Amino acid sequence: MRTILIYSGGLDSTVLLYHLREAGDQVRCLGIDYGQRHRCELEAGRRICDGLGIAYRIADLTPITPLLAGSSQTSDIPVPEGHYTAESMKLTVVPNRNMIMLAVAVGWAVSLEYDRVVFAAHGGDHPIYPDCRPAFVEAMQRAAALCDGHRVTIASPFAAKTKADLVELGQALGVPFDKTWSCYQGGPLHCGQCGTCVERREAFERAGVADPTVYTPA
Amino acid sequence: MRTILIYSGGLDSTVLLYHLREAGDQVRCLGIDYGQRHRCELEAGRRICDGLGIAYRIADLTPITPLLAGSSQTSDIPVPEGHYTAESMKLTVVPNRNMIMLAVAVGWAVSLEYDRVVFAAHGGDHPIYPDCRPAFVEAMQRAAALCDGHRVTIASPFAAKTKADLVELGQALGVPFDKTWSCYQGGPLHCGQCGTCVERREAFERAGVADPTVYTPA
Repeated sequence: MRTILIYSGGLDSTVLLYHLREAGDQVRCLGIDYGQRHRCELEAGRRICDGLGIAYRIADLTPITPLLAGSSQTSDIPVPEGHYTAESMKLTVVPNRNMIMLAVAVGWAVSLEYDRVVFAAHGGDHPIYPDCRPAFVEAMQRAAALCDGHRVTIASPFAAKTKADLVELGQALGVPFDKTWSCYQGGPLHCGQCGTCVERREAFERAGVADPTVYTPA
Repeated sequence: MRTILIYSGGLDSTVLLYHLREAGDQVRCLGIDYGQRHRCELEAGRRICDGLGIAYRIADLTPITPLLAGSSQTSDIPVPEGHYTAESMKLTVVPNRNMIMLAVAVGWAVSLEYDRVVFAAHGGDHPIYPDCRPAFVEAMQRAAALCDGHRVTIASPFAAKTKADLVELGQALGVPFDKTWSCYQGGPLHCGQCGTCVERREAFERAGVADPTVYTPA
């Protein structure tokens, strides 16, 4: 299987990268620069891919960021702190981010004649992010199958998993968790307070795996 | 209705712009710069919008053009001449162009809390461009309805029309056809030989409307 992975350099998509390699896929990784506050994730992605000898490209979408206003991740709106399922976390939503990322990845897959595009949406994403839910992914799958004579499929193989499941799987696959980046603040260390840091910590605890992340002291 | 129109400055989308204004929609136009050879269409679009006092934005997607290789419109591959339904016209297909354009437009619509995104695909586009066909548009509609809490619809109101129908409609609406740009070559005048010039000429003939386009002398 020839697969484009939408790859952020975060925990979830790094586990998926290792999972795809284990399954024998020929993988190319696509990072998306949409002007995110936490763009250090892109450098984390590059380092991990370089270490594995995996092709990694960044799609620069920063010129369109002004069209996608309203998110804490692409503006001066402060990143909300607290639990990642809280209503306040909706501030982190970038309008239609996943459709845009999938569309670009499918375009690249058509151009390369690759078989599929995958991304690492998981069950924990569903409450806050409608564009991580299975119904959205199914609609995009259908559109991708119809957009060109060369058919590309879309898959989110972790849709039924929790983030704790991913930590467990990543541990078994030898994922270098300490090299992955989650924090929405994008500071020098993981802040430990934003929704995605809280989710990351909780996932290690629930999986019973030691968390190697260095968080900013409270 | 608050509507984002994907607007190329070509004949079809200009007729749609006039049609939407006639219907009383509040319209904003989105031009897409994907590094197309015929990017003079973007300037045609700006001039027409400026004349009407319609908001016009260009989404600059040129940084991702290298990912969408294989089209005569974004590379050194020569633009094919001949009839627009010929097999050779597939060279003009930009991988997944419409999904990418729609995704960006839907993101903008979510951000503005607009109601819908429309584009001017018509029946003549169907043989060569799978991403102009109604089944593709329906799949994208479904994805757009699911991508965010704010629901955006997608419509291609000209899906059942021919280009000759659009010329007829545009004539009735007072569309300044001479200000629109179709030619894929993007030279100083319409070339008269590429698929889209052939289609344009034929549409005026079939509609029985005088064609004000100045074509390059043969």
